[in-house]
Amino acid sequence: MGVDRRGSRPLHQQVAQALRQEILGHDLPPGAALPSEAALCERFGVARSVVRQAVAGLAADGLVIRRQGRPTVVAPPAEYRRLVQRATGLFEQFARRGQELRTTVRRLCPAEPPAPARAFLGTADTLQLERVRLVDGDPLSYVRTWLPAERVPGLRPEDLTDASLHQLLTTAYGLRPVRGRRQVRAVAADDMLAEALHTEPGGPLLLLEGGTTDQDDRPLEWFTAWHRADRVVFDIDVSDTVETVRIDAPRDEAGEPPGPVDLARARDLVAELGRVLG
Amino acid sequence: MGVDRRGSRPLHQQVAQALRQEILGHDLPPGAALPSEAALCERFGVARSVVRQAVAGLAADGLVIRRQGRPTVVAPPAEYRRLVQRATGLFEQFARRGQELRTTVRRLCPAEPPAPARAFLGTADTLQLERVRLVDGDPLSYVRTWLPAERVPGLRPEDLTDASLHQLLTTAYGLRPVRGRRQVRAVAADDMLAEALHTEPGGPLLLLEGGTTDQDDRPLEWFTAWHRADRVVFDIDVSDTVETVRIDAPRDEAGEPPGPVDLARARDLVAELGRVLG
Repeated sequence: MGVDRRGSRPLHQQVAQALRQEILGHDLPPGAALPSEAALCERFGVARSVVRQAVAGLAADGLVIRRQGRPTVVAPPAEYRRLVQRATGLFEQFARRGQELRTTVRRLCPAEPPAPARAFLGTADTLQLERVRLVDGDPLSYVRTWLPAERVPGLRPEDLTDASLHQLLTTAYGLRPVRGRRQVRAVAADDMLAEALHTEPGGPLLLLEGGTTDQDDRPLEWFTAWHRADRVVFDIDVSDTVETVRIDAPRDEAGEPPGPVDLARARDLVAELGRVLG
Repeated sequence: MGVDRRGSRPLHQQVAQALRQEILGHDLPPGAALPSEAALCERFGVARSVVRQAVAGLAADGLVIRRQGRPTVVAPPAEYRRLVQRATGLFEQFARRGQELRTTVRRLCPAEPPAPARAFLGTADTLQLERVRLVDGDPLSYVRTWLPAERVPGLRPEDLTDASLHQLLTTAYGLRPVRGRRQVRAVAADDMLAEALHTEPGGPLLLLEGGTTDQDDRPLEWFTAWHRADRVVFDIDVSDTVETVRIDAPRDEAGEPPGPVDLARARDLVAELGRVLG
């Protein structure tokens, strides 16, 4: 792929644009060395001075890092990682790392949910909550949450400003978000999302969506969260051999809280299980 | 947000474009009802005939479904789901559902890995493997894999055409992919990826990246897989209470395979554990 010598754009900008595209597409991942100047000259059919100007432009944009006597490398992105296997909300994950996540509430009012939210929640009597989460003053994600209205009476926008919805559900309503299934997609930003997240319309967003049930396995929330693709990475641990043991808060038939769990015996059993399995 | 009456594009195309953007951005998710004709007329400040033409265009593109006497809804996308918590490869996940995943090998040759792959594999003596996975003749994902060269002597492209890399590693080399950590990102397609995946440059792709270790906890592969955003969804189960018990294939100090596992005793222990925990 060469450059367009008859186009109106300077050659160095064309070279820079091609490399920028490969960096943003992760085709040249963070930490990867840029091809040598000689290799880039040959690939694009341009002079070394053109390549130097292109790379200088990428360095000025913070996309690559030039190092004395060593290859230029793709810069690590300024991004936040999110463990998506935990029901723990974004707020708690940031708080644990000592980072402040701010939240502005854009909307909280009764509204009919879309079909997937309605199917999960089992009701159309819902509150629609729209929030923007920010770190260092810059938006990180836009979150739309549907809550069964009868489970959160009196919920006010100011309760959720710079606060955690999950914490509020637990402390004010005794509802603990425990588990659910999530879907992850890449989508293109529409105008509303691009405006709210300070990105370009049509650009990629990382979407996390799903329902969460409470400690009694009752549906508690359905949410759709769009994340800035340049700021957020989801981490997932995978294995073909992990067996999960759900340690639930159980209830008896009358809905009474359970008696104390024999944790010492449980620990012994887990230890023996480990030995039996080698 | 109204329409541009002095622009060169017909009003119905402008209305259709705004709605298309919201559908593709998941702001109007699959299953959601489109606002009523009256609401759309008011929002865009256009006549009902313009709205009808716009919605007819979306229906012709398969983005919405019109139903006699009921609201028009956003169509479910034609997409494939991938469980990302399992080390099981895409090939096996499709085979289990009776779907045929085809694979073309675009490149297999010795090459130096980028920094993250090198750090994980602990060597720069690697093979670079580039594959396109297709379902129904249409590309689903583009996968770049780095393998330690000394662990897969004699590996040929034809061994991997329409085949599973993980299966081949297991049967031909005795190397079983067992676990790892994955990162999930949304990225914009560059020209190479857009061409290989039949999408638009700059459009969203769903990226899955990470390293996998084998049954002896040795690094086996590092891969980056770009997925078509309109065809692939990742499913993840989340919980704040799941404790994992890793049932590993153990080895003794001499690296000998382990003796038989007492599965009956293991099952008893798990059962008692369940009772103890309520």
